[in-house]
Amino acid sequence: MIVEVVAVGTELLLGQIVNSNAAFLGRQFAENGFDSHYQVVVGDNFDRMVETIRTAIDRSDAVVITGGIGPTQDDVTREAIAAATGRDIVRDADYVQALRNRWETLGRVMPENNLRQADRPVGAEQLPNPAGSAPGIALEHDGTWIFAVPGVPAEMHLLIRDHVLPRLRAAAGETGVLKSRLIRTWGRSESQVAEMLDDLFMATTNPSIAFLASAGEIKVRVTAKADSDADADALIAPVEAAVRDRLGSSVFGVDDETIYLVVQRLLENKGWTIATAESATAGLVSAALTQTPGASKVVVGGIAAYSAEAKVDLLGVSAELLASEGVVSEPAALAMAEGARARFGADVGVAITGEAGPDPEEQPVGTMVIAVVTPEGMGSRTLRLPGDRERIRTYTTTAALQLVRLAVSGQWWAP
Amino acid sequence: MIVEVVAVGTELLLGQIVNSNAAFLGRQFAENGFDSHYQVVVGDNFDRMVETIRTAIDRSDAVVITGGIGPTQDDVTREAIAAATGRDIVRDADYVQALRNRWETLGRVMPENNLRQADRPVGAEQLPNPAGSAPGIALEHDGTWIFAVPGVPAEMHLLIRDHVLPRLRAAAGETGVLKSRLIRTWGRSESQVAEMLDDLFMATTNPSIAFLASAGEIKVRVTAKADSDADADALIAPVEAAVRDRLGSSVFGVDDETIYLVVQRLLENKGWTIATAESATAGLVSAALTQTPGASKVVVGGIAAYSAEAKVDLLGVSAELLASEGVVSEPAALAMAEGARARFGADVGVAITGEAGPDPEEQPVGTMVIAVVTPEGMGSRTLRLPGDRERIRTYTTTAALQLVRLAVSGQWWAP
Repeated sequence: MIVEVVAVGTELLLGQIVNSNAAFLGRQFAENGFDSHYQVVVGDNFDRMVETIRTAIDRSDAVVITGGIGPTQDDVTREAIAAATGRDIVRDADYVQALRNRWETLGRVMPENNLRQADRPVGAEQLPNPAGSAPGIALEHDGTWIFAVPGVPAEMHLLIRDHVLPRLRAAAGETGVLKSRLIRTWGRSESQVAEMLDDLFMATTNPSIAFLASAGEIKVRVTAKADSDADADALIAPVEAAVRDRLGSSVFGVDDETIYLVVQRLLENKGWTIATAESATAGLVSAALTQTPGASKVVVGGIAAYSAEAKVDLLGVSAELLASEGVVSEPAALAMAEGARARFGADVGVAITGEAGPDPEEQPVGTMVIAVVTPEGMGSRTLRLPGDRERIRTYTTTAALQLVRLAVSGQWWAP
Repeated sequence: MIVEVVAVGTELLLGQIVNSNAAFLGRQFAENGFDSHYQVVVGDNFDRMVETIRTAIDRSDAVVITGGIGPTQDDVTREAIAAATGRDIVRDADYVQALRNRWETLGRVMPENNLRQADRPVGAEQLPNPAGSAPGIALEHDGTWIFAVPGVPAEMHLLIRDHVLPRLRAAAGETGVLKSRLIRTWGRSESQVAEMLDDLFMATTNPSIAFLASAGEIKVRVTAKADSDADADALIAPVEAAVRDRLGSSVFGVDDETIYLVVQRLLENKGWTIATAESATAGLVSAALTQTPGASKVVVGGIAAYSAEAKVDLLGVSAELLASEGVVSEPAALAMAEGARARFGADVGVAITGEAGPDPEEQPVGTMVIAVVTPEGMGSRTLRLPGDRERIRTYTTTAALQLVRLAVSGQWWAP
């Protein structure tokens, strides 16, 4: 099954928006085992749209057109599909009535233009759009499927998931469901994770295993094809268990569980509160800990101690210790974490000190020290990070949350 | 001049990366007055690349191909251009030597594959790539310009700016320079800014005026075409002066001057230090103030006082005041800002308190209060913001930096 994406919109050609829709569709098609040979962007120009759709029909088994189905005069995707397939346009009486009712309910007069959204090529089916007023279109023409979906990403996603993919899977002879489980890990590189799972990766095609790296996190995606949801779950479960067994404490969550949420839940389960002491990151860890609603149950507060004086005066770190061990050192970080606990009366303290660059004072740029103190113990770690100031600070923030997770769950790291 | 973009790369079709290169090129072409009718993405497949390049040559005046010019076997853009234009490939002896020298200097053995980067279609010119090892290619074929540039954005940007745009401008009969000035504003909506500049916008075509909105900031871009850099500057200057005159204190910087940098400079010029006290933003303002290198000269530190107790204990805010005025109130924010100044011995204090949601305690979700205290005065402002938790916190952080800018430069806002 070869699927081609045609994105309609002059704003794409002008670079006013990036064609992230095409990337989304590419991922969906790849996950469903469909091939993609071309993606084309064309402006809101009738003749060029017709030509582009004709070319796509000739060389592909299915064409998904994004954009150009709204109510305004430059939305001509419906007419272009009709012209490319030699069909007339019909206006759907039921949808006309639905549109009129909608506007009446709003107590407003509907611009007549809106009725264009009730148009479709003869033989095409309307795809209901729960998130907007422009319905999608599905048309099977001489064995080729043609779909038109809105350009607005949120609306497009729903129509692709609920209408386009099921029809394409059926056309490709695929039955049943496709289900994925995302296992989120931190602390090992993509190549390490891949190596540790290499035999699993080779041994299983259903479920299949894929690796995704983003912002220091490695995700392992386990995807099963099965006749039912329950069958897919049964295929995924043993592979997920094996992955967790291999990767141990690197696994911190699944699917949409962020590290923010995981840390918050762990602290809630322990009944512990947390406070921060930050130098180089200057509040990023504190801000990250409070990213998720409900954070106030566990986060008391934090001190951004940017100057050495602030570390001494506000966190109670001994000036002698800073002088003998250095401001960027594990003893200093541990003392800062203790200081945060004491100042805020919190159970857990996490501290960061380091050289974010570009002009280091004690250590090479990218030297970042993290310390965590809990009622059960304490630990610290020194990182040597590449990249610029922003990247160093962002990576350190994630690392600090991950070390808090390990510490709070009693999985202290090796020095 | 009609220019077509052909992006080569299976990773684009699979959605592993988004085609932001096409959007960049679209903006460049639009700014230079070129037309764009199509953008095409094609995988690393020789036959389909040749067909795509042929089609582009037939229907456009110039074709810019991104990607596929690296050293590996699947990099076949050079060969595809040669096949599409019926030319042979020659290997550039000078570039072969340059590549060999480069690897020798590194003390390593060059994989022979690398020599493919010295290949070009007969008649084509190599475009030097200062940021990578794959040179670009420029070929004029039967009146159509064909360019190949790297897919890596940073390398592509340089080649487009230094080699592709100048040749396209010359081919289009454009001489001279095109120069832009970005005037950055905050505090007025895009439609307000557009209305205030409406007559200017109508009166001038060179320089032209455009509006760009991003993350609460409205940018006014003034673009001049002229014979020389100095002439372009002379065209821009009076328009920039008029824009500044109309928009007053909304203008905070030009070109790549971020609000972080502007605040840091203003504080340095005054010889003032700053400290933060944050509740709902919990460190975001402190982190933002330290985003730019050199921040340690002016930023002393901050306190994230997430709980009411922390506001009292660590910032010295009176518990009676919090009880009578509310934690989310201008008096509370002013007391927090004073507390931050006192605790850190800083000249300026900035404080945030508010309801970031989703479960408000005192005020509707999105109520955010900012206060700034300087040696010269104090001010506060209450915002009612739409959106989710993340958006509210991000917008408030920017607003706080903007109010610090106004306060430090003595431009206090109306209540």
